[in-house]
Amino acid sequence: VSAAYYFSDLLSSIAEKGRQFLRPLPDPGAPGRVSDLASMCADLLTGRGEASGTALARAAIEAYERLGPDGKRAFFERLALEFGPSRQRLEAAVRFWSEDPSEERAASIHYQSEPRRIELFRRLNRAPGGAASLVAMREDLLRLLRGGAALETVDRDLVHLLSSWFNRGFLVLRRIDWSSPALVLEKLIRYEAVHQIRDWDDLRRRIDPPDRRCYAFFHPAIADEPLIFLEVALTQDMPNAIAPLLASERDVVAPQQARFAVFYSISNCLVGLTGISFGNFLIKQVLEDLRRELPRLTAFVTLSPAPGFMAWLKREGAALDLSPEQAQIVARLTEPGWDADVAFQAQARGLVELLAAYYFLIARTPDQRVVDPVARFHLGNGARLEQINFLGDRSAKAMAESAGLMVNYLYDFDRIESNHERYANVREVIASSAIKRLLRALPRTRASLSAPVLETK
Amino acid sequence: VSAAYYFSDLLSSIAEKGRQFLRPLPDPGAPGRVSDLASMCADLLTGRGEASGTALARAAIEAYERLGPDGKRAFFERLALEFGPSRQRLEAAVRFWSEDPSEERAASIHYQSEPRRIELFRRLNRAPGGAASLVAMREDLLRLLRGGAALETVDRDLVHLLSSWFNRGFLVLRRIDWSSPALVLEKLIRYEAVHQIRDWDDLRRRIDPPDRRCYAFFHPAIADEPLIFLEVALTQDMPNAIAPLLASERDVVAPQQARFAVFYSISNCLVGLTGISFGNFLIKQVLEDLRRELPRLTAFVTLSPAPGFMAWLKREGAALDLSPEQAQIVARLTEPGWDADVAFQAQARGLVELLAAYYFLIARTPDQRVVDPVARFHLGNGARLEQINFLGDRSAKAMAESAGLMVNYLYDFDRIESNHERYANVREVIASSAIKRLLRALPRTRASLSAPVLETK
Amino acid sequence: VSAAYYFSDLLSSIAEKGRQFLRPLPDPGAPGRVSDLASMCADLLTGRGEASGTALARAAIEAYERLGPDGKRAFFERLALEFGPSRQRLEAAVRFWSEDPSEERAASIHYQSEPRRIELFRRLNRAPGGAASLVAMREDLLRLLRGGAALETVDRDLVHLLSSWFNRGFLVLRRIDWSSPALVLEKLIRYEAVHQIRDWDDLRRRIDPPDRRCYAFFHPAIADEPLIFLEVALTQDMPNAIAPLLASERDVVAPQQARFAVFYSISNCLVGLTGISFGNFLIKQVLEDLRRELPRLTAFVTLSPAPGFMAWLKREGAALDLSPEQAQIVARLTEPGWDADVAFQAQARGLVELLAAYYFLIARTPDQRVVDPVARFHLGNGARLEQINFLGDRSAKAMAESAGLMVNYLYDFDRIESNHERYANVREVIASSAIKRLLRALPRTRASLSAPVLETK
Amino acid sequence: VSAAYYFSDLLSSIAEKGRQFLRPLPDPGAPGRVSDLASMCADLLTGRGEASGTALARAAIEAYERLGPDGKRAFFERLALEFGPSRQRLEAAVRFWSEDPSEERAASIHYQSEPRRIELFRRLNRAPGGAASLVAMREDLLRLLRGGAALETVDRDLVHLLSSWFNRGFLVLRRIDWSSPALVLEKLIRYEAVHQIRDWDDLRRRIDPPDRRCYAFFHPAIADEPLIFLEVALTQDMPNAIAPLLASERDVVAPQQARFAVFYSISNCLVGLTGISFGNFLIKQVLEDLRRELPRLTAFVTLSPAPGFMAWLKREGAALDLSPEQAQIVARLTEPGWDADVAFQAQARGLVELLAAYYFLIARTPDQRVVDPVARFHLGNGARLEQINFLGDRSAKAMAESAGLMVNYLYDFDRIESNHERYANVREVIASSAIKRLLRALPRTRASLSAPVLETK
Repeated sequence: VSAAYYFSDLLSSIAEKGRQFLRPLPDPGAPGRVSDLASMCADLLTGRGEASGTALARAAIEAYERLGPDGKRAFFERLALEFGPSRQRLEAAVRFWSEDPSEERAASIHYQSEPRRIELFRRLNRAPGGAASLVAMREDLLRLLRGGAALETVDRDLVHLLSSWFNRGFLVLRRIDWSSPALVLEKLIRYEAVHQIRDWDDLRRRIDPPDRRCYAFFHPAIADEPLIFLEVALTQDMPNAIAPLLASERDVVAPQQARFAVFYSISNCLVGLTGISFGNFLIKQVLEDLRRELPRLTAFVTLSPAPGFMAWLKREGAALDLSPEQAQIVARLTEPGWDADVAFQAQARGLVELLAAYYFLIARTPDQRVVDPVARFHLGNGARLEQINFLGDRSAKAMAESAGLMVNYLYDFDRIESNHERYANVREVIASSAIKRLLRALPRTRASLSAPVLETK
Repeated sequence: VSAAYYFSDLLSSIAEKGRQFLRPLPDPGAPGRVSDLASMCADLLTGRGEASGTALARAAIEAYERLGPDGKRAFFERLALEFGPSRQRLEAAVRFWSEDPSEERAASIHYQSEPRRIELFRRLNRAPGGAASLVAMREDLLRLLRGGAALETVDRDLVHLLSSWFNRGFLVLRRIDWSSPALVLEKLIRYEAVHQIRDWDDLRRRIDPPDRRCYAFFHPAIADEPLIFLEVALTQDMPNAIAPLLASERDVVAPQQARFAVFYSISNCLVGLTGISFGNFLIKQVLEDLRRELPRLTAFVTLSPAPGFMAWLKREGAALDLSPEQAQIVARLTEPGWDADVAFQAQARGLVELLAAYYFLIARTPDQRVVDPVARFHLGNGARLEQINFLGDRSAKAMAESAGLMVNYLYDFDRIESNHERYANVREVIASSAIKRLLRALPRTRASLSAPVLETK
Repeated sequence: VSAAYYFSDLLSSIAEKGRQFLRPLPDPGAPGRVSDLASMCADLLTGRGEASGTALARAAIEAYERLGPDGKRAFFERLALEFGPSRQRLEAAVRFWSEDPSEERAASIHYQSEPRRIELFRRLNRAPGGAASLVAMREDLLRLLRGGAALETVDRDLVHLLSSWFNRGFLVLRRIDWSSPALVLEKLIRYEAVHQIRDWDDLRRRIDPPDRRCYAFFHPAIADEPLIFLEVALTQDMPNAIAPLLASERDVVAPQQARFAVFYSISNCLVGLTGISFGNFLIKQVLEDLRRELPRLTAFVTLSPAPGFMAWLKREGAALDLSPEQAQIVARLTEPGWDADVAFQAQARGLVELLAAYYFLIARTPDQRVVDPVARFHLGNGARLEQINFLGDRSAKAMAESAGLMVNYLYDFDRIESNHERYANVREVIASSAIKRLLRALPRTRASLSAPVLETK
Repeated sequence: VSAAYYFSDLLSSIAEKGRQFLRPLPDPGAPGRVSDLASMCADLLTGRGEASGTALARAAIEAYERLGPDGKRAFFERLALEFGPSRQRLEAAVRFWSEDPSEERAASIHYQSEPRRIELFRRLNRAPGGAASLVAMREDLLRLLRGGAALETVDRDLVHLLSSWFNRGFLVLRRIDWSSPALVLEKLIRYEAVHQIRDWDDLRRRIDPPDRRCYAFFHPAIADEPLIFLEVALTQDMPNAIAPLLASERDVVAPQQARFAVFYSISNCLVGLTGISFGNFLIKQVLEDLRRELPRLTAFVTLSPAPGFMAWLKREGAALDLSPEQAQIVARLTEPGWDADVAFQAQARGLVELLAAYYFLIARTPDQRVVDPVARFHLGNGARLEQINFLGDRSAKAMAESAGLMVNYLYDFDRIESNHERYANVREVIASSAIKRLLRALPRTRASLSAPVLETK
């Protein structure tokens, strides 16, 4: 394995450069002018850009970073207007292909219609820290888009390029633990999106004990920024609530004794990579690695939120034809603090579980997709809906979004592809019999089944 | 700097996988079938490719590697025929744009015309060692192209993608020395293309002494393969011959005392990346790094061959209107061993230098380019033709190709861009006055000047 | 530099083993028996210890770690009684030497009188993590010694061996910054002994900004434990108070612009290495490295406490023959909160500075040493007493110990050795003229000068 | 595992310094003077040595390295005469102990009698690269001792200290393979002492194939010098000759399929560490690691030379009371080339095996030890004499030393300690029944059994 060490600092130079460029440069005097930057960009696309090595790319990126918000907007607008496909070349290519619509001439159109900003982005990437700068640029661009700017074409091109560069094949899986650099760890605290990490002690509880794991994808060109990270707990039983997993006092399980690997949180870190999907690959890689490392693990499950449940219930509850008692219960679910009433808990449980089963198995969006976004992600990845957990998460956010519901999805290595196929082809929601049994309580006459519920073994 | 160490083994996993996949897998039984592979490729482009994580990509690459030469040819032909742009989508996009030739619709054509094999290559890259496999695939493809296969469209797409992935911004400069892994060093021995490295002792003389350096670009995804390497000697004087630089017995110069950095050899390693240019970036990065490390260096020069000189002389010598004496000398230059005749050396020297000056400064190809390919490379990079060295290389190859001529090109950091511009715009060959003076010996009446020789300061 | 990477994981194995052994093993059943351990120790000293490789050493260390406090005490007592020098061999060696007191026979006594526990410790060290275990053993031993156990001989032998193993030549200087592993950083929080680090934000302020540095010595065999660390601030001026250095809001100095390197805190981490001195080496190494890295630095100073000042004043104030006014001021210095009274501050300042000058320059311990322990350390290292800072540290601890006094010691690279010589030979306290001038205020008749105050240029 | 990377370059600084100091410095002008060096050494032992940090130690080592052979001899002689134990302190300690021979006073003699050169060596070690310098110093010292110098006392002290510093606990096991740095690999070529490595191709055959391994111990303070290395072949059968193992053309065994791990060569690298034993630890560590990595391995054996066989036969053959035919065979064994005579081979085989069995099992040195030095090493380590291989090594050296005999010693993990005990206590040679059966051919009347041959199960 020692060759690895020789190559190990391949990254260091990049990393160092990356760090230095991730931090915005101090404005050296006057603010940058968009026209200067645009002319640098034009130069970059010529032989001058070649002759300068990386110098011109570096200068252009620095000029961009000196721009204020208006300047950046103006710059992107010029990219949209002046750095699109060459009309002349496109017309010629189309004409050429019309005369003889061969495969080759068709492919030629592809090259002749490439927006020139794509090549510009490639050349900006030559600068030290270029990839990080382009990701930051995309973050700016998203902000402008949200503000209403008509920059979709620029965004499409930049996303397309980033998506090619952040290809799975270039990502590296790293375990993150208490021996990781603080500058990586602080990013976990900052970006954890599912179950907030309160402080360094809380963080340590999630990555340091032997039955807690955290894995992330990194890209060599942005080496000290995790792109996405996954938190895993090794347990004896399938968990039905989040609080015990995160408790500060709990019994530690020896990894060799654990039976379940529980994926309880997955978070993206770089806003500029929004829309480029890594989660599916991360889950499957971790699954594969854990299987090898801990052969006694018997199942890989998530402990996931159901963030769309209450919104759906409010939106479509009326159509469910509930009895007055049921409607009363549902109404109370929207009042904070109901979970403190143990008697009401007992009363509500059956209905909540029934509604949840309906929500996942039967309810559909207008375009016939499963309603819950987290369900769509895991089912699309080939997981199975395994268990519905009443009051699995009693945080204020979870109570409001999903009446505290949590869900386990099961990743069965040997069925991932077939599950995916069935879900993709016939929109079948693969679910455990236990969940499907919940639907039996459904008065046939009252339900309008919008999707068939098929049996799984 | 310690963060670098954390990230350092980002590469190790990739590297390990890379190594394992660079070696062709043993054929496990029956040879692969092209139709199986093609159907895996079709699957890869669907959601199944997504659901499988990296498994399907891995299987497809292994299937490819099991194919024999005919199978590979058949596979590439299917890529050419069946994995091009979607005709239907292209036609729709063109129609849409014809109705309203906006920037946005033009750009849309670009995406709708993308040959599907490009996305296929992206997905193959997800496999462990995928990038190395695709580079090896390109090597196969080049062999087929040389054999006359009509696979140019496939090659264009693959090159385009590799060129984006092997962007300068993702390359890492590494110094190679005697403490580098043997598996890297053996590649220097294998790939040195200019001045052959005979054995490990010869190699050591080039990388171990303090006044000898070797630098290479690596790519994180193919971590133990240098892409290109540059050999450098630190010297007191501008060298006029290669033998003293490579001598086994010579005085070592303390790097802090050296005045010249001499780039005497640059070689590519990966055949599969042919046509993707790294040399310009490598030279400029090394130049920049050496300037910083050794501020007492006063000049950066090459010691380069002139590989086209004798071929040009044979081809066009007749047109030069030489005197009988001159013609006799030229004739003898084609006879091996003339350099052993010291008297003849003295006789030939003036004429050879004159012809060389003519060759570099005046002669042009039919499309008006400089004749010598090495000159084209360095002049295009912004270097200056600095010195012509009679009998700079007396190896059999150099005697045959260039009558032993060697050339120094000078990289003047502050003039690189302007030199490049002048060369690019008005085809001016930037040369030292010493070289231009050589032309004074040229009888005006006999020369047919095909290009003006301009003065440099 | 790439060889470093090959060797880099030399440490990893050790480190991993070290970590695993630093944590006490869970007691596997019955508590260990001292007699079992003693018999393993006896075996270790025979050929069986050799034949077992490292297995017996490992078993013995595990057996030790399973002992409770009483067991450990009993074990050390057996080491004291049964593992001393061999009486027989010592007597023979002494007799032999008495007959002919040659150099060689004298040296022979050294080997024949070696307590057998020293060789035992050497053999215990063969176990994975052995060095860390022996350091932990010493920590236990110190606890027992404080509890009154008569184990000085065992301690002397263990210290002697550890001192040889933790020789400066085996220590490695590492910079610690925000990219260091959390498991190293938490040790800084835990062990900072001078100016407490409150939390991770406070820590970050000390190691992350470009004008803050932290350096530590590590030993390869206990790789994730810093032995000692030094905190440094780069500043424009010589600081006279600690609070501005540690402030959360302050202007950052560009390192290249800084003129002073201020050593403001130095702390040991491993209790088990108490009495083995690293501080002197650490300061000098950091000084040397910073000189090289930042040639514009003009001075290296400490900002140090004066922890013995108030105790001395209480103890010996009476003998100083103070005026009633002065005595009143001194009395008030012992009342908390006096520094809030600005008028009193002004009144007290002159006297406090005078007394401080007296304390450092004139006062001596009964055995004629400088009274202040921090002063003894820095003066012994060859530093000069440079500046006395009234109310340099207004923390409760500093107010109580030293009336808020802080001191700058100056490390002048070229005078370190001569300063040390003068201090060591004639007990001269090397001090700046400014400090010596403070003594002029001293009424000659009232002072009993116990040491001459010499001029420094 | 990522902490390892943080600590990884703990070594790099040391390593770099080490490298630079391993190479003798160029003589800067005048040769060093012994008296200057001796006075630096005296200073080093005072507080000046402390105050200077590592500067004085560095200067002293450089001064030593500038000395010529005579200067070094003179320096060591001063170490012998002037840096021994302090006579005065020793006498006082002995007197004190005579008055009351307590454990404590006995131990005190140990410290009071320490030769001052030991502390001097400790302080020299503070210099960068100090440990490497001291090892080189020992190499010089061994040369002087062989030349007859009376420096045994100095050598004893230096060995004692090095032996403590190169304690097993500080050594790191590293696998060496084709990805190791060339500067490490060249040392294998240089130091292989058993079966010469002819060139880099030969080296590669020993470390690169999957069924060939090489392991070495390194010390962090001399990081790029292996101390000792062990070459291992993974095989299907117990090998009975060396040539097939080293053949350039042979079938490679998949490591997972191998049944035997064969230790066929072990070599020390640093002359200066002669007499400090690492081999036993290396064999056992490799054995333990291979067991874990390749659980299907069934046995760990050596393939060893029998270097003392022919010398013993010549020396003691007469006493063996051989028949005339036997004596004739023995006589021919001393003639080179006999192994080419196949008929003679068949004739000699039985006798050679019988004599070999006698040589290992019965013959003894005057002090009752086994005659063969390699046998003494492995038997002392707890191995069993497993198989005698006629003509196992037909190299000229092996034919001359041992008539081509090779021997397999078996390391049975569970019996190592008991084998060692039996060998150590009753001098029993643990041997396989096959070997003991060879002795049956021994005419009882002719053999003078000098040791009992016991049965092993």
